[in-house]
This record gives sequence, C-alpha cells and structure tokens, in this order.
Amino acid sequence: MTIKVGIYGARGYTGLELVRLLSQHPDVELAFLTSEQSAGTSLRENWPQAPDLPLISAADAPLDAVQAVFLCLPHTASAPIAVAALEQGVKVVDLSADLRLDDPAVYQTWYKVPHPAPHLLPTLYGLPELEERERIAASNCIANPGCYAAATLLGLTPLARSGMIRPGTPIIVDAKSGTSGAGRAPKQNLLFAEVCRNFSPYNIGRAHRHLPEIEQNLAKAGLEPGQMVFSPHLLPTDRGILSTHYVQVSDAETAHQLFVDTYGSEPLVDVLAPGKLATLAHVVCTPKAVISLTPVSPEMLIVVVAIDNLLKGAASQAVQNFNLMWGLPETRSLL
Amino acid sequence: MTIKVGIYGARGYTGLELVRLLSQHPDVELAFLTSEQSAGTSLRENWPQAPDLPLISAADAPLDAVQAVFLCLPHTASAPIAVAALEQGVKVVDLSADLRLDDPAVYQTWYKVPHPAPHLLPTLYGLPELEERERIAASNCIANPGCYAAATLLGLTPLARSGMIRPGTPIIVDAKSGTSGAGRAPKQNLLFAEVCRNFSPYNIGRAHRHLPEIEQNLAKAGLEPGQMVFSPHLLPTDRGILSTHYVQVSDAETAHQLFVDTYGSEPLVDVLAPGKLATLAHVVCTPKAVISLTPVSPEMLIVVVAIDNLLKGAASQAVQNFNLMWGLPETRSLL
Amino acid sequence: MTIKVGIYGARGYTGLELVRLLSQHPDVELAFLTSEQSAGTSLRENWPQAPDLPLISAADAPLDAVQAVFLCLPHTASAPIAVAALEQGVKVVDLSADLRLDDPAVYQTWYKVPHPAPHLLPTLYGLPELEERERIAASNCIANPGCYAAATLLGLTPLARSGMIRPGTPIIVDAKSGTSGAGRAPKQNLLFAEVCRNFSPYNIGRAHRHLPEIEQNLAKAGLEPGQMVFSPHLLPTDRGILSTHYVQVSDAETAHQLFVDTYGSEPLVDVLAPGKLATLAHVVCTPKAVISLTPVSPEMLIVVVAIDNLLKGAASQAVQNFNLMWGLPETRSLL
Amino acid sequence: MTIKVGIYGARGYTGLELVRLLSQHPDVELAFLTSEQSAGTSLRENWPQAPDLPLISAADAPLDAVQAVFLCLPHTASAPIAVAALEQGVKVVDLSADLRLDDPAVYQTWYKVPHPAPHLLPTLYGLPELEERERIAASNCIANPGCYAAATLLGLTPLARSGMIRPGTPIIVDAKSGTSGAGRAPKQNLLFAEVCRNFSPYNIGRAHRHLPEIEQNLAKAGLEPGQMVFSPHLLPTDRGILSTHYVQVSDAETAHQLFVDTYGSEPLVDVLAPGKLATLAHVVCTPKAVISLTPVSPEMLIVVVAIDNLLKGAASQAVQNFNLMWGLPETRSLL
Repeated sequence: MTIKVGIYGARGYTGLELVRLLSQHPDVELAFLTSEQSAGTSLRENWPQAPDLPLISAADAPLDAVQAVFLCLPHTASAPIAVAALEQGVKVVDLSADLRLDDPAVYQTWYKVPHPAPHLLPTLYGLPELEERERIAASNCIANPGCYAAATLLGLTPLARSGMIRPGTPIIVDAKSGTSGAGRAPKQNLLFAEVCRNFSPYNIGRAHRHLPEIEQNLAKAGLEPGQMVFSPHLLPTDRGILSTHYVQVSDAETAHQLFVDTYGSEPLVDVLAPGKLATLAHVVCTPKAVISLTPVSPEMLIVVVAIDNLLKGAASQAVQNFNLMWGLPETRSLL
Repeated sequence: MTIKVGIYGARGYTGLELVRLLSQHPDVELAFLTSEQSAGTSLRENWPQAPDLPLISAADAPLDAVQAVFLCLPHTASAPIAVAALEQGVKVVDLSADLRLDDPAVYQTWYKVPHPAPHLLPTLYGLPELEERERIAASNCIANPGCYAAATLLGLTPLARSGMIRPGTPIIVDAKSGTSGAGRAPKQNLLFAEVCRNFSPYNIGRAHRHLPEIEQNLAKAGLEPGQMVFSPHLLPTDRGILSTHYVQVSDAETAHQLFVDTYGSEPLVDVLAPGKLATLAHVVCTPKAVISLTPVSPEMLIVVVAIDNLLKGAASQAVQNFNLMWGLPETRSLL
Repeated sequence: MTIKVGIYGARGYTGLELVRLLSQHPDVELAFLTSEQSAGTSLRENWPQAPDLPLISAADAPLDAVQAVFLCLPHTASAPIAVAALEQGVKVVDLSADLRLDDPAVYQTWYKVPHPAPHLLPTLYGLPELEERERIAASNCIANPGCYAAATLLGLTPLARSGMIRPGTPIIVDAKSGTSGAGRAPKQNLLFAEVCRNFSPYNIGRAHRHLPEIEQNLAKAGLEPGQMVFSPHLLPTDRGILSTHYVQVSDAETAHQLFVDTYGSEPLVDVLAPGKLATLAHVVCTPKAVISLTPVSPEMLIVVVAIDNLLKGAASQAVQNFNLMWGLPETRSLL
Repeated sequence: MTIKVGIYGARGYTGLELVRLLSQHPDVELAFLTSEQSAGTSLRENWPQAPDLPLISAADAPLDAVQAVFLCLPHTASAPIAVAALEQGVKVVDLSADLRLDDPAVYQTWYKVPHPAPHLLPTLYGLPELEERERIAASNCIANPGCYAAATLLGLTPLARSGMIRPGTPIIVDAKSGTSGAGRAPKQNLLFAEVCRNFSPYNIGRAHRHLPEIEQNLAKAGLEPGQMVFSPHLLPTDRGILSTHYVQVSDAETAHQLFVDTYGSEPLVDVLAPGKLATLAHVVCTPKAVISLTPVSPEMLIVVVAIDNLLKGAASQAVQNFNLMWGLPETRSLL
C-alpha cells in the first residue's frame, strides 16, 4: 500500500519532523509540501537529505492528488483546510489547536476568535494510549494533542480514571519546554542570546491555552475541572517537555502498579522502575513518553512525564494516528 | 579600615566568585587562598585578572595573619576550620552546610555523619533580609544559607510570618538550578555532553538536604514543618536558581502588598510589579533576588523567586554578612 | 565633573552594555536613552536595576541637554545623528560602521549606499592601544571599531608595524563570534533552536564588511592590502569573539617579546605566557583583550585573540574612548 | 545472514552510538557489551530502549561467541583485544588510535609508549570513500579513522590526488569539535559550567595526535608531509566537527567539479552547490559528511567539511566498514 500524503506547514519545526518521519515511511509517498513564506524554494537548500519536492503555497496544493494530509498550521488557518480536505475524501490529522476543544464557545474564550469550522466539532482527540484505537481507526479526521497536553494527560489520566485523585485538592503541573515549542517564526524572546542562560515562567496559573484542552480530557476521565494549576516555563534547550505533576491521592504507593497496568504493553510509553526519575535525555529525538512515579507520602504523589515536544508532542504522535487510521502497525516509521 | 581576609576553597565556583568580589572590595585585603587540589598553582594561570596570591593547602594557611575567613569547603571539612578560626579571634562566614542546622541530630540524619562541632550550634543563619541585622553585626560566626534555601526562604517567610498559609496544606516547591550548584569536582553527570539538551529532576519530594534547613527556618517564622514538597531539577545552564512555589493561602491578592512591605526598602531584593514574572535573566551575575507574585485564585498563590546560586545563593550573600559583621555598608562591593 | 550623556539605540545588545557601564560611571549622568521600536517603554520592565529613564524616539532626543552621545545605531542611521550632535558641540562616539572607513567610495562598495556624511571622513579610529591617545583626547568624534576588526587589529598590528609579516603570503583569519554580534532584531537564523547544536561559517574569504576596515588600518601599519582571508563563523554561545590568525613571519620566536613590548603596560590587553592559549572564558563579560602567541615553526605564527564582542568589541571600547576624550582615567567604570 | 557482534567500550559516547546503530541493524545480533567501570549494570538503567544485555568486563567477554567486534577502547587497551580476536577468527573494527599509524616508531613518538602490537601494522585505514572498497571487503581488521582525520582527509585528499595543492605552501586546518570528542570520562575542563560560554583552542599548530594520521594518508595521496598547520578548538556543543581548510591551489575554480567527480555518487558525502556553506546543522546525528568549496581567488580555496564526530567520525564510519567487510550494502542501518 502506498498512501499519497501532503504536509501543510512543512517548514516549521513540527513540519520538518513530519517530513523526516514520512519520507522514511514505507507506505507513504510525499506528494506535496506547503509553506507560505518559503514557497518557491526547497527544503534541500538547507537540508541536503530532504525529499526532492518544492515548497508550494497552500493555495496551490493539489488536494485531489493525495489521500491524507497533515496540518501543521496556525490555529484558524488549519480548520478551513481540514474542511476542504474532508470534502474531497482526504483524511486529516490536524496538529493545530483548531479541532482539540469540543465546544466552540470554549475555543472562542481562549483563542479570542469565533471557531472557524464548528461543524467539525467534536473531533476525535488522538492520544492512542488513552483512546479506543478502533475509534481512531474509524475516523477521517483526528485532532492531534497539544504538546503540553499530551504530557500531562499521559501523566494524569490513569489517576483520574482510577478515582484516586482527592476531590477538590489542587493539582499542580509545573511544566518546562524547549524553545521549539514556540515555533519557528522569529521573535526577540526566542533569540539565542535571550534564551541562553535564561529560564522563565510564562502564562502560569490558569492562563495557558493548553489548560482547557487538558481539563476537557480529564473531565472525560472523571475529574472535575478547576483543580488544576498549570505553569509552563521556557527551558534553555531546543526540544523536549518535562512536566512535574504534584497530585494528592488516596494511596500513592499503588500508583506505580496502576501505570504499569495502563502502559505496560504500550510500545511508546515507558514507566520507569520505582526510584528512577524521568529526564529529557530519555526522550529527546525519540517518539516515546517516559514516566516516573514518586510517592512522597501516602497522600502525595509526584508524576514526572518527559516527551519530545516535536515528536510524541506533535509529529510522531500524528504518525501514530495516521498509522491507526490506515490500518498500519502503529509504530511504523517510528521505532 | 582594611580587613585581612582568607578564603578557604578558593578554586571552586563559589570561591572564585568570592575572590572576585573581595578583590574589588575597598576595605578588604586578601591574605591567602586555599585549595587542596591546586595547592602550589595560582588562579592567574587561567584568570589573568586574579589577585597575585598562590593557592596553598588549608593546613598551611596563616590564620594568625587574618581577621576574617570565608569557608567554601565541603561539609565536615568546614566546621573544624571554623573552630580553629574562632579560637584565634578570627571571624567566620561558613558557606558549607555544617553550621546551618541548629540540631546536631538533624545534621546526622541528613548528612550521615556525627556533627563535627556541635558546640558551635546554633549558629546564626545569615539571611539579612529576614534576620535582625544587629544580630548579624554582633556575631563572630555566621552560617551562610544554602542556595535553594535562600531562594525558598525569601519566597515563603513573609507568608509564614503573616500566618497566611493554610495549615496542613501542601506547599509545593518546584526548584531549578544551573549546574554550578553541584560544584566543580568532575562528575560524569555534569559533563557538558550530558547536561546539554537534558533537564532532570533529582532528590524530589522530601529527599534533598536543603529541606530541613528550609523547614527549620520556616518553623521560626511560624510554619509547622512537614507540609513542604521540595523538588529540585538540573537546568542546562551554568548558573541561577528559579524556584516556583505553589502555596494555599487565605487571601492571595494581599500577598503582593505583603512582599512590598517586607522587601520594599531592601537594596538586594526586587519585588516585581503585578503581572510580571521573575526569570533567571533578571538575576544571573547579580547579587539580587527577584520575586514575583501570581494569585491564581483567592486561595492559590504562585511565588516565583530567582537568584544567582553563586551570588545571592552563596558568595554575595556571604559578603553581605561580612559587611554587616564589620559595620560596613551592607552592599559594599556588590552594587 | 559630571558629563551629561545620551545613548542612541539603548535597547540593542551593545546599547544595554553601555547603559550598564555608564550608569555606574562616577562622572556620567545619563540624560536620555533612545529606541525606535520601544519608545514609550522603559528598560526597567525587563531589567529592574536599569536607570529610571524612559526610552524615547531619536527624533525626540534633547541633544541640547547633553555633552556627549554614544551612537548604537544601524549604519546610515548613525552618521546623520553624528552630524547633528557635532553641530551642537556634542561629542560623539559612533559605534556604527558609518565613520570607520576613510574613503566614502569604499563605504559605498561595501555597504551598497552612498556615504551619508562624507564630510566627516576621515574620522579618528578609536582603538587606543594602537593609536596616539593624544589624538583621541583631542577629538570630538570617534569611530569605534567593529568587533571582529578590534580583535584582528590587536592581533596583527604589532606584526605589521614590525615588518615581520612575509610580503605576499596569505594571512588567514579564522574568526568565531557569539550570536549577540548579529544584533537583537529577530531573525530566524538567530533563534535558539537554530543556533543550539549548530556552528556555521558565513561570508568567508573576502566577503565580510569588517575586511576593508581591517585592511585599511593594517595598511597604515605598513601592510599591503589584499593578503587577508577573513572567515567568520557563528558560535553557539551568546557573546565573545575568538579569532585565530595564521601568519607567515620572518621570525616567529620573537613575536612574544614584540607583543609584550607593545601591550605590557596596557591595562586592558593581556598577553599570555608562552604555552598558554587565549580562550573565550578569559574575556566574556570583561573589557579585556587576551592574546596568545604560538610559534609553529620559525616562519609560521598563530596569534589567538579573544575579546567580548559587546565590550572590547563595542561598549567598553567606546567608554575607553569617551574617557580619553574627556581627560578621565582610561579605565574608569571598566575595571 | 545474522552476524553475532560484540562491542568493547559500549558505554562511552562512541560505544553508545554503535549500540544504537547495531541494535537496529537487520543483519546483526548483539552478543555482548563491555564496560570496565559499569560492569554489572545495564544500559537500560538510563536508556530504556537499550538492548537487554548486561555490561560485562572485557575479560569476561566471550570472543568465541561472536564473529565480529568493534573496539571503542583507549589506545594501548585496544590492540591486545584486536590480537586476541583475530587469532580466533573474529573480524575487528578498531575505533581506537592503535592501528591507524603504519609505523610503530611514529606511534611511539606521538603516544609516548611502545606500540602494543606492531605485527598488526600496517592495518587498512577504513575511509571507504577514499579507499578501494574491495580492500576493505577483503580485510579482517580495519583501523577506523580518527574524527578530525576523517573530516580533513575527506576535504583534502581529492586536492592532494589531483596535484592541485601548491608545493611548500602552508595548509591551514582550523578545526572545531563538540565536547563528546573528548570522551565520557569526567574531567573538570569538560564540565557544563566550564564549556558553556567558552570556546577554546588546544594543541594547535603541529601538536595534536591526529596530525600524523592525516599526513600519513595525504602522503599516500601524493602530498609531501610537513605543510600542515592543524588547530583544533573545543565548541560549546555536544557533538559535531566543522573543519575549515585554507589551501593554496593552482586553480581554485576547478575544485568544485573535482569534488563532484570524487563524491557525486557517494551516498554519505554531500558536496554543496557553489555559494552554499557546510554547517554542523547539516550533519549532527547523521552519518553524512557535507563539504563546501569556496574559491577566494584563483590560488586560494576554502574547503569546509562538517561531520558528526560520533558518527561519520566514529560509529557510523565503523558500521560502513563492517558492512563492506561482510558484503552487505554499505549504508545498511545508516540511512
């Protein structure tokens, strides 16, 4: 089977990872790559091993020549392409935020614009380790999780489902990300000379746009919204997310077994042995999530989750979803 | 006034900062510098601007030629030198952990050895912004705070004193430090190729040796010990500590005014305006602490504290104490 | 004496260093700071210790309120301000490239625009260790050297003056700079995620704009232009220049003494002992140049020069010139 | 075909890359991994995806259970293992320096010890793009090139063979390497806090041990030894070598075609288009060399070569040799 695939936004950090993963995917033929700012050039100019495809404007992308598209576009730009693709029978993995929130009113609250395609909502949220894979396989359109959301949902959903989290207590998520999570558009605060030797919190508390995405999905796992404090920080490194979660639970000692039960057979989630701690070095440039559990007391549990923000937090996660949508082995081109 | 000063452990990261600060101090004359591993060499070999003094072994240091010493030595090595110095009437600022804990039994629990000089305990803990400066001025021996402890005590003591912290609730301290905090002795996990692109938690929960130091001092401020979860992480940068504190309080909105009242006239502590967040870039290579307050809800407050671990967390803090001990302006050679 | 000073372009990397140096200068009162993009804000927003002055547009700067100005502006924007200042009797240190080349035709060749103020040429080139200081003291306007040019001129001028360089042989300058040398305007190639783990040559051979500046000044030292190959590279660090110069000479062994003779009494240039090598760590955040000489054979000499590009390569160099222009000790506020 | 393979020194940086490459090699079964310092532990402790093999002492390694070994050992430790392996009919790729120099006297001059196994000399030097591949295929033992040597030989051998280099003129090699090239044993100068913000030359001129290795192989290409100046520098990054070569040639404009002719069909060497420059970002974490040619004048050519020091400079180069030795496609497990 060869599936013809187009990538929108191929020159951003996530897009480049998708190009890399899909150009080595035995069942994929890359048909087009889009980039608004670099249309007319080629990835080969800076990446000799890149596929021999020109970058074209999204407006010129031949949707009728592909069977699937990956959308690595800014929010509001992404949903209209998803609509057009689906109308032509092209399957969609959307890596933007457009299809992650079920309720268009919540979208408008957090993104300050009306939802660009409310009839697509709700779209299935593609975190396979926590979803029924049959549902992903049956979908034509998947909302790929946000990077911080992927890390935190992998870390908290087993606890939420188990009912182990003590109601009404704060859930503290102290998250740290490399700079590639902020994208490739030039901004002063992302310059090397600004980030080097710096470390900085931003949008802490209940202000970051991944918060409603996390709470929506934890609510489906049985957790009341509103308990979470989510504080992202910018690391002086290029990639990776490490999130430290502080959760008050009924029995912290049982958490490790719960996570082993949940993820023990998952090829892309590693639960570390008791006493070991997850680090960025475990996951950078890999499609894996690594999780460690540290009971501090019977009622206090620390869950550390590490992922590569561009892979399990974006591109490899998208390929996982793609593989499931097409009935392929889930880890193809990933391991 | 010229005070003759010796520095023990002058070739570690903290020692080097002390040499730099004291060699530009108008009231100080550096009399000797010790280093066990580099005795017989000079700092000038790698630092052309260094003072023209040989590095000598501690055993050869002429205590009778100085009026004050700074001890940048490993714990257990430091206290015996403090004893010898005090016996000769030489004033001491001890930057090791030896004199920070009031109770030798607590020391033994955390450091796994009997206390080397229990008769020196309790030693006055030298965090001038939170201590009566007259007491420091009247002391011959000061325990200089640990780097993580300095950051967290500056961030939590005003809350503890005010009685604002809700009893029995967890206090989450998610702390991040540059690698110089781990010292200059070669260890594989501190190699550039290991730290670069990594970010890693260590000794999280209630396992780090600065925890009892923090809790001892917060207890004096009225807070029951045992509430704190303290999780240090190693940053891919050379210096700086940023600690994010999550505290359940009675009225988060009043915290900013409380901190302004506490620190408003302090030359070395900046409380940022509401809405601003403390970052490492605010403090690296400065003797300042920078603090920001973020109320998440009426009951949840985030306190971010940034310091340079080698300065406000060690060397400049020690000079502050020294200046007070000698009746000099507190910020001399620092601002 | 208090000299009222204005800084144009105070929010760039060089401007910030000047603000820092001049706000601690005992003979200087900062009167205004300009920034086109940030007019209306204050440096205090991100730098609590900054002077309490608003950033204003250059058009609003009160030239009649100052006695001296520093121009940290892009080329072509700088010279017109220099003209206006000089007309009002305000002394000028120009850190742009506008006044460095004596011949406006050469300027037009390299900068692709007519010179904005040819009547100011030639302007005295302010590298005090290689110029007669009386001439700087007597000047109202100084062209501050380019960062790469400062490093290379310090390394090669003693050789050129001595006549030791073999005529007609290539002089290879392999230069490496931190990213702050490229300025603070956002560009994709300067993003942290691009620079981290990268190292890249640019404008190598005879293509970089500092080449004519270097050759012009070496010609004054007796060296025929045209021998030089100048290859800059971008380092994954924020600041510092290290240039490695490969020169064919008549007697490499005598070079060390020549440099000691030239710089031995200079407070801001250190010539290392034979066998030692200059490194960035010697100079970052210092106003010094550090030079090492390595004879490879009687005819081949390697000269390594390290400076902080923002200090000896820009801001502290400018303060050195300023001090000389006002009859102050040359290193005031620098050491 | 399944080839049973052992890796000596599996826990160093090069060894780890070999483990990674060989554990995904379809024709290889890893049989043992050695590490003296970590014998008794497993790579899985820090690398969950590592193969499930214990680390054992070299003395315990079952040479009779394998058909091939890779030696990632210090010089002098490596050759004796090579001898033992060859005696048992086990093929050897030696990544140490022990077998790279043909003449044991030269080895003794540079390594200060008698050669540990002179009867193995000369061993075929395994740089396939510059060697007859049939000779590698016919060998039981290959000396894998040093990292700096690989970069410089790829950059200079085509010029040497063509006779284009002007006799008697200096060849300047200004080389820069990430810290992993210095190995994983803890040393103070490799600590993060020392390397961060530093950049430093070392062993410049004609003092580095890769110099005789380079000159020996260029002599075989027709170049007289003695012309080369080779200056390595330590970059503040973990991996990658970029070498800038300045060569006086008879006709610089023809060099690009010469390199295209030499490497045009090589899958692991990319020659960039005229005007493009090789960078570390082209090659880090890839098995490729990327080369750019910049004619400065008809007589002066700059050749920039970039490789990943751990891959084309060590591990992937070794796998290339292994594949050839076993009649496998040369790039298997590499592309």
